[in-house]
Amino acid sequence: MSEKTKVALIGSGNWGSAIAKIIGSNVQKIDYFDKEVKMYVYEEMVNGRKLTEIINTTHENVKYLPGHKLPPTIVAVPDVVEAAKDADILVFVLPHQFVPNTCKPLIGKIKPNAVGLSLIKGFGEENGNIILISNQIRSILNIECAVLMGANLANEVADEKFCETTIGCADSRAGKVLKDLVDTPNFRVTVVPDRQTVEVCGALKNIVACAAGFCDGLKFGDNTKAAVIRIGLKEMIRFCKIFYPEPRVSTFFESCGVADLITTCYGGRNRRLSEMFVKETTKSFTDLEKEHLKGQKLQGPQTAEEVFALLKATGNETKFPLFYAVSQIAKRELEPHKLIDYLRNEPDD
Amino acid sequence: MSEKTKVALIGSGNWGSAIAKIIGSNVQKIDYFDKEVKMYVYEEMVNGRKLTEIINTTHENVKYLPGHKLPPTIVAVPDVVEAAKDADILVFVLPHQFVPNTCKPLIGKIKPNAVGLSLIKGFGEENGNIILISNQIRSILNIECAVLMGANLANEVADEKFCETTIGCADSRAGKVLKDLVDTPNFRVTVVPDRQTVEVCGALKNIVACAAGFCDGLKFGDNTKAAVIRIGLKEMIRFCKIFYPEPRVSTFFESCGVADLITTCYGGRNRRLSEMFVKETTKSFTDLEKEHLKGQKLQGPQTAEEVFALLKATGNETKFPLFYAVSQIAKRELEPHKLIDYLRNEPDD
Repeated sequence: MSEKTKVALIGSGNWGSAIAKIIGSNVQKIDYFDKEVKMYVYEEMVNGRKLTEIINTTHENVKYLPGHKLPPTIVAVPDVVEAAKDADILVFVLPHQFVPNTCKPLIGKIKPNAVGLSLIKGFGEENGNIILISNQIRSILNIECAVLMGANLANEVADEKFCETTIGCADSRAGKVLKDLVDTPNFRVTVVPDRQTVEVCGALKNIVACAAGFCDGLKFGDNTKAAVIRIGLKEMIRFCKIFYPEPRVSTFFESCGVADLITTCYGGRNRRLSEMFVKETTKSFTDLEKEHLKGQKLQGPQTAEEVFALLKATGNETKFPLFYAVSQIAKRELEPHKLIDYLRNEPDD
Repeated sequence: MSEKTKVALIGSGNWGSAIAKIIGSNVQKIDYFDKEVKMYVYEEMVNGRKLTEIINTTHENVKYLPGHKLPPTIVAVPDVVEAAKDADILVFVLPHQFVPNTCKPLIGKIKPNAVGLSLIKGFGEENGNIILISNQIRSILNIECAVLMGANLANEVADEKFCETTIGCADSRAGKVLKDLVDTPNFRVTVVPDRQTVEVCGALKNIVACAAGFCDGLKFGDNTKAAVIRIGLKEMIRFCKIFYPEPRVSTFFESCGVADLITTCYGGRNRRLSEMFVKETTKSFTDLEKEHLKGQKLQGPQTAEEVFALLKATGNETKFPLFYAVSQIAKRELEPHKLIDYLRNEPDD
């Protein structure tokens, strides 16, 4: 008896539900996938009913992706171990700070040769140091973990508007299966081998978006904003070269690189709140997060601070003037308009 | 007696006047430049006075860059031969269709070892084929000709807002002199050797901007627009590899590449009129040019048509689905929403 490849989703927020729509449909079309996809849902009550119950009866995540039907192949499960235990592919899509506590109960309870696919953006933290989320998952669960990143606003993906994405996966056979799982005519997947590059792009872009937002707030104009995005991209490449060696230059031309960076610097909440941060000079980012994000944290300022600590510890501050300036401006230890002085010091390399 | 390096400007429109502001100031600061810079001005009457006379008395190009003083070192001259004859550096900054007729009177009248610097965007045309403007200048005047391109909206440059630009110049000694001539703390120059790549970027970006404008008009959203820009960039690279071999990948990360492309796809009139073109379905680009540009031609549709002819003649249409689709949509031979079908056929290379 040939076993089918079984998929589980670990996470069910806005992005998790959008990708569930694609995955739930693709497993029905491709013969070698098991037709049932369990989705771990953090249980909560919505209008007096359990969210898992709502999803399993109405096939809609009314809280995080209202207005979109999930395929009935998606089965919401409130227990993460139950969701994950038989899966050959574990798709991780939850806020990065929840990764350790969500993964630990799974130790010893999943298939030993399962493969992870992380859709999680941002760095993790381990003993005060940056750690890639995919490496964190690898190290906790002792499995391979690929990543998926791109210019993919969740609601537009759910609306089936055309876009592209990038899977970073060192193993080309696993890469092919993961591509089968998520590729559609409107969600076009490219697989590249340098997983770390793909993931680092997804974290660092938010720092650049803060710089772009500062520019917008200061009314520096289109030329300056284009320079900020370009210099930000150069620092992203330089960062990979120093800390995650051997990035392929071509990966920065993929959706995870230049495309996601552009979208984040023109749309996106990191840009938007950074623009406000410049105009409302008495407020901190924490104040703005409370006012505009219901207390949710922005990734840009946090990532800038983590990157600053790494640059300082390794003596690399002067190689990354844009990243450095954003980290200082975000703490109000540098005036926003001073950003330009740092851009002027961008190394040529 | 050591001779000073003498500079002339051939052109005096909006961009020409903005760069005159920089050049007129830099020649005063750097010892080896002659302090007087002649600027060829196509003579016209403005409020009953000659434009050259106005510029030479008020030091303002009231027609093309009102509100900005030019340094008094800039001397407007209505005769192109008179402007160019003693110059060691000829800065060409005029609409590309005027290049042949402006250069021809200069044959045999300029210094034989003068160097050109072209700020002109778009392709020229020779016997029905595309020709780079810098190559056209080289071939008419038998001089070396470098290029300068970047994310440089003229008014923002004149306002001294921070930006970057790229000079493409094969000869590193000439490149250094040209950098001295235009580099300032707010106009940051990088010199690269592959002149042709720099110039091709400046022409092709307008095709991509049309595709971005079509997306905006069709309300395809941020993800799709990011995909269009990314695929456009890939086609720009592919175009250089096939038709102007040996581009340096790093040049596409310079201001002339990704930065100028971004600015053009978010701001810029090619994007704007392409958005209108989708919404006003009975109008041609010629109609829109008449209504909104006082009959001036947009570069995007024209360049798309020139590129289409080249791709067809060389059997390369299928390698450039975005360029091809834009050329057909611009003639209303393809419905704008069909663009997506072409993006799906983008080769992987």
